[in-house]
Amino acid sequence: MTFANFDKIAILGAGALGAFYGARLAHAGANVHFISRSDYDVVKQQGYKVISKDGDFELPKVNIYRTPEELGPCDLVIVAIKTTANDSLKQLLPHLVHDKTTILTLQNGLGNEDAIAEALAGKLSDPKKHIVGGISFLCSNRISPGVILHIDHSWIRMAEFDGEPNERTQRVADLFQTADIRCEIYQSLMQARWEKLVWNIGFNGLGVAAQADTSIVLNTPELSETLSGIMTEVREGAEAQGIQLIPNIVEKMINNSRSMGPYKSSMQLDFEAGRRLEVESIIGEPLRRAKAAGRPSPFITMLYSIVKRMDQINAEKQG
Amino acid sequence: MTFANFDKIAILGAGALGAFYGARLAHAGANVHFISRSDYDVVKQQGYKVISKDGDFELPKVNIYRTPEELGPCDLVIVAIKTTANDSLKQLLPHLVHDKTTILTLQNGLGNEDAIAEALAGKLSDPKKHIVGGISFLCSNRISPGVILHIDHSWIRMAEFDGEPNERTQRVADLFQTADIRCEIYQSLMQARWEKLVWNIGFNGLGVAAQADTSIVLNTPELSETLSGIMTEVREGAEAQGIQLIPNIVEKMINNSRSMGPYKSSMQLDFEAGRRLEVESIIGEPLRRAKAAGRPSPFITMLYSIVKRMDQINAEKQG
Repeated sequence: MTFANFDKIAILGAGALGAFYGARLAHAGANVHFISRSDYDVVKQQGYKVISKDGDFELPKVNIYRTPEELGPCDLVIVAIKTTANDSLKQLLPHLVHDKTTILTLQNGLGNEDAIAEALAGKLSDPKKHIVGGISFLCSNRISPGVILHIDHSWIRMAEFDGEPNERTQRVADLFQTADIRCEIYQSLMQARWEKLVWNIGFNGLGVAAQADTSIVLNTPELSETLSGIMTEVREGAEAQGIQLIPNIVEKMINNSRSMGPYKSSMQLDFEAGRRLEVESIIGEPLRRAKAAGRPSPFITMLYSIVKRMDQINAEKQG
Repeated sequence: MTFANFDKIAILGAGALGAFYGARLAHAGANVHFISRSDYDVVKQQGYKVISKDGDFELPKVNIYRTPEELGPCDLVIVAIKTTANDSLKQLLPHLVHDKTTILTLQNGLGNEDAIAEALAGKLSDPKKHIVGGISFLCSNRISPGVILHIDHSWIRMAEFDGEPNERTQRVADLFQTADIRCEIYQSLMQARWEKLVWNIGFNGLGVAAQADTSIVLNTPELSETLSGIMTEVREGAEAQGIQLIPNIVEKMINNSRSMGPYKSSMQLDFEAGRRLEVESIIGEPLRRAKAAGRPSPFITMLYSIVKRMDQINAEKQG
């Protein structure tokens, strides 16, 4: 098996998402190399353990590195660091790429492909052409170093950052499908990202601002009205930029969420754990783009101001 | 001294506001009777102590009652209970009034005069005519039973609930001025209330939703933008009902607040202390009136949903 011609694969950021996907690829036989400073010692000794609704498995022997320098260039780099750490991409990414490297980001929200392209501007002649954007639908937790709990889902939507889907996009999708992870290829990355943002801005934002899980938001009339207001502004913000989303997306997202049962968004979990919030990629950058396209977006303006303040409070607690 | 012909004065709700104004009136020689269940034992024994920027004073002997029944009808009833307890007005008020009683509410927000009129509907032939609405500007805390800390301000704007200011309105104002409390009489109660709401909805709401005092709100660009959005919607909500506010009220309120120094709104203090929030009178009722007048008010809609949720969280903590 050739693993879609990606002979050497790097996972940059081995948290709940990166470690899960990387472990699944490695378990399927791909040549996967993880970069994680915080979990290095435990994983080097004990490997990964994945407790999953799709079946538990262990990877006793894992290629893990403290830094990208120790690993060196790879054929595929999967970026899975938190977007709050995107400033570090300039230091991390250049060590991992050669002329033909593909970079897939599975990070949340908007602006990550841009940050990656910028980080590689001095290293590659046209970095945009190397980047595939991925939107991950996954519910997983890193319950301790080296131990991942996979609760639900595991599928990815992907599209080229610059241009139409091509043979390379298909190879990335094939790679994940080898590991039984469903992939959909989208024509438009912005469509895929903004469709996810309709859910993400509403539920992540209110998860923090209202300290409410999906069930509380949907079953409290005033919060439900606010949710619709936010989601409608996200749709309008996309449309003002010429990005067409699926019809009735707000109603569909709300109905799907009703059937899901209570669910805490990643941002609500981060908030409760006192961690930094992905406020810029999930709320700030979409808001700036909607405003630049002529949509004042009062609901998202207010949501952004409150969530950014909560992130500041968490930052102050960390000292 | 006749104390403006109010021979017997009741203070209903002897918290930081009611106890302060009542103590000042009693200290000036008026015949004041306090109703407070929670502070009864301490105040009956020790009286009131007021620590004030205008000069400390003590009232060793205080007329205090556990219930309105024990006190009976008065000439002036000053309503100073929290608006979250307005449901109890039906039980409390009828015991305190006779045919010529004046009722002055110094409570926050909208709907209090209506609640008082409703509570007295079976008792007085035209209760609206008995009611004076007061807007209090006072910064005080009840630091322990019977001990009031007066930090800043102490003035009142008042207007008739139903009709133009008249000789009775003037008598109420005169009473307070006897105790060195500045009073302004307004032609329009709704103008006075909505002007205060511009400040109250913005800073009380964000005090809870963003856990931010006035200084943090004003000095954080995103929160400051949200504050302007909220205040502008309050102004527009008033205007849509035909209520004219002073020109440039939003800019004036913001500039005044900048010169004030850091200040925590009453709702932020209630939130931090785990108490119930005056969310309906300060945010919910104004929002309903703005919407009924055709203003969708997205900022206030979202603010209301979040603050109401925070009040619910406090209520659940209380059990």
